[in-house]
Amino acid sequence: MPCITLLTDFGTRDGYVGAMKGVMATIFPGVDIHDVGHDLRQGDVRGAGQALARYWDRYPPGTVHVAVIDPGVGTERRAIAVEVGQRFLVAPDNGLVSPILESEADWRAVTLESPEFFSPARSATFHGRDIFAPAAALLARDVELLRLGSEVLDPVLRKESQPEHGPEGVRGEVIGVDHFGNLITNLPGSELRRALEVFLGNRAVPVVRTYGEVEPLHPLALENSYGRVEVAVRDGSAAELLGGEVGAPVLIPARRGTKPPFSG
Amino acid sequence: MPCITLLTDFGTRDGYVGAMKGVMATIFPGVDIHDVGHDLRQGDVRGAGQALARYWDRYPPGTVHVAVIDPGVGTERRAIAVEVGQRFLVAPDNGLVSPILESEADWRAVTLESPEFFSPARSATFHGRDIFAPAAALLARDVELLRLGSEVLDPVLRKESQPEHGPEGVRGEVIGVDHFGNLITNLPGSELRRALEVFLGNRAVPVVRTYGEVEPLHPLALENSYGRVEVAVRDGSAAELLGGEVGAPVLIPARRGTKPPFSG
Amino acid sequence: MPCITLLTDFGTRDGYVGAMKGVMATIFPGVDIHDVGHDLRQGDVRGAGQALARYWDRYPPGTVHVAVIDPGVGTERRAIAVEVGQRFLVAPDNGLVSPILESEADWRAVTLESPEFFSPARSATFHGRDIFAPAAALLARDVELLRLGSEVLDPVLRKESQPEHGPEGVRGEVIGVDHFGNLITNLPGSELRRALEVFLGNRAVPVVRTYGEVEPLHPLALENSYGRVEVAVRDGSAAELLGGEVGAPVLIPARRGTKPPFSG
Repeated sequence: MPCITLLTDFGTRDGYVGAMKGVMATIFPGVDIHDVGHDLRQGDVRGAGQALARYWDRYPPGTVHVAVIDPGVGTERRAIAVEVGQRFLVAPDNGLVSPILESEADWRAVTLESPEFFSPARSATFHGRDIFAPAAALLARDVELLRLGSEVLDPVLRKESQPEHGPEGVRGEVIGVDHFGNLITNLPGSELRRALEVFLGNRAVPVVRTYGEVEPLHPLALENSYGRVEVAVRDGSAAELLGGEVGAPVLIPARRGTKPPFSG
Repeated sequence: MPCITLLTDFGTRDGYVGAMKGVMATIFPGVDIHDVGHDLRQGDVRGAGQALARYWDRYPPGTVHVAVIDPGVGTERRAIAVEVGQRFLVAPDNGLVSPILESEADWRAVTLESPEFFSPARSATFHGRDIFAPAAALLARDVELLRLGSEVLDPVLRKESQPEHGPEGVRGEVIGVDHFGNLITNLPGSELRRALEVFLGNRAVPVVRTYGEVEPLHPLALENSYGRVEVAVRDGSAAELLGGEVGAPVLIPARRGTKPPFSG
Repeated sequence: MPCITLLTDFGTRDGYVGAMKGVMATIFPGVDIHDVGHDLRQGDVRGAGQALARYWDRYPPGTVHVAVIDPGVGTERRAIAVEVGQRFLVAPDNGLVSPILESEADWRAVTLESPEFFSPARSATFHGRDIFAPAAALLARDVELLRLGSEVLDPVLRKESQPEHGPEGVRGEVIGVDHFGNLITNLPGSELRRALEVFLGNRAVPVVRTYGEVEPLHPLALENSYGRVEVAVRDGSAAELLGGEVGAPVLIPARRGTKPPFSG
């Protein structure tokens, strides 16, 4: 039996996620539902997409991944389901699934609007319960994607900024900060292989293979478990201790002895 | 197989919820347990009842809903199980299940005290593990409600304040604040149908159908997905930005052009 | 079918726990995964061990308990699986499982390093996904413990401080603070049976059987649901209101009328 995963910014205090799970358990009794997280920053579509990209293809084929970070609920934004890499994604069409669609060649998307399944009397404010949960349970029950609505050829895509190669090295930026305060960049880990240090802003940070190679509370850069360059502090938060945040510039210098590069 | 849902204020850091789940999995191997939330405000029986009311009947018949927000653990307060609307509720008898019993005509309740199932050697401080978890697993296994204890005809009921109709309109109040900072009132959404605005205290707020009809960070009132009047701020927290809190007065004026009504 | 439980300090915002669950669902489709908690204090190996000890043996035989609080990931610290009391524990070898190994006579432990199951190409920073999750799924599928790696005879053990008996009574200390702000001590509850009060530092606190025996916001001491002496405040946080913290001295006096004992 396929399982359904859930990612939202609903919190778990109000019973909203409970309502979604109840709808799914009613449509598909016994379905296996996995919580991924319900404490996404409110409206953080970009962070949700990065999180989704970390687990969607670790699940077996047939899994249905629901992600509801939906500041536009009740506006004209579409609700979509996507079949990609043998899994399904169910989400608002606000760019949340971009990181996956950008990396996969083959996918097919539909709107969630078939009157066979989605009542026109649904609420205007809780599509998690009234659209996304039923769509996920139906897909888990092997209802055909194309029965849920009409095909969408232009889902909203948000491109992450790309690293730039220049004479002084490869320039990128911080694109996310995780629970540990690690700074995730848009730089591929492969670029690190010849580097001894990287610059976060003007701060030089040594390149290592794992956290334990520096002293506690010291900064480091490494290729993380998803193949990205990450700037971290051992046993501490790089976001706090180095002041890094989303958008901060990061340089992998082309040669040793590079001066701090961002000093204008 | 029926599933069991769990709502507590135990947090998830100490292993207490794990102990409850382990007890249930021991009594009923393979039982399907759904977390609803474990971060309810400590002792917030009223908020827990409102949350429970949002999901209990979205689950299929046979579901067992456990809710343990229990500031009176170890006192004379009873522990109860209720059969209502083809589902079961398992909770301390402190008014938590009131919102459901108030809305349903038929229910039957028992105390959880049968020596067949509940040891007199149980702890005085962790009835979640020693009473509520076993009771839920037994009900999920089709043990008869009346085998768990003796019938209770007078469970604790807490009535929510009711709206009042007067010459200037319908007066109600905020009865809950959700994770998004939305202000949930005791006013039925049907009262909104002819209104153009409502007053939260002396502040006029436009009535709309969904969040997207006002500009970001602007206030609005709408009928929410549970048929209640809700005062919200688009992409923001009404609790923070409008200063609303539980008990704040709300008026749906009888006619247009009503002056701010609460100016004493 | 056995179930797998999960305890981590990963948070649920980034998708890391989702990746672990996906790996387990891929190796063992349909496996039943129970979240215990993902919000442990970062690197709090001691608190994690105390939490694990509260639920591990409440689960039925065959259960696989995964606990990943792993500040040493990527260093030389071993990853281990332990068979104990008919359950399995899967964790970094940093003392996390000590509270269980200290209390059980029979156990067998192995490193998680068999090339049959653990790729040398695994990441250096996310053993939750690359080592602990697969090990747990394999054990749940009845793979023999000894196939996962070679036997470990000297897992890291951290002894909790022990109470000391002296002329003025039994001295112990606070070893944990739970979600409610209750102060958990290393004193066995049996020591309380003849005491009328205990001292937290120099503060006398009455001994009761349950929270309801004192007025709201008043302090109390009792034998908690795990047989330990606990200092609490009714409907409040002892950690906040009494200023207690890990390491604070606690005395069960040998006789009534003892003067405050810690006044130097």
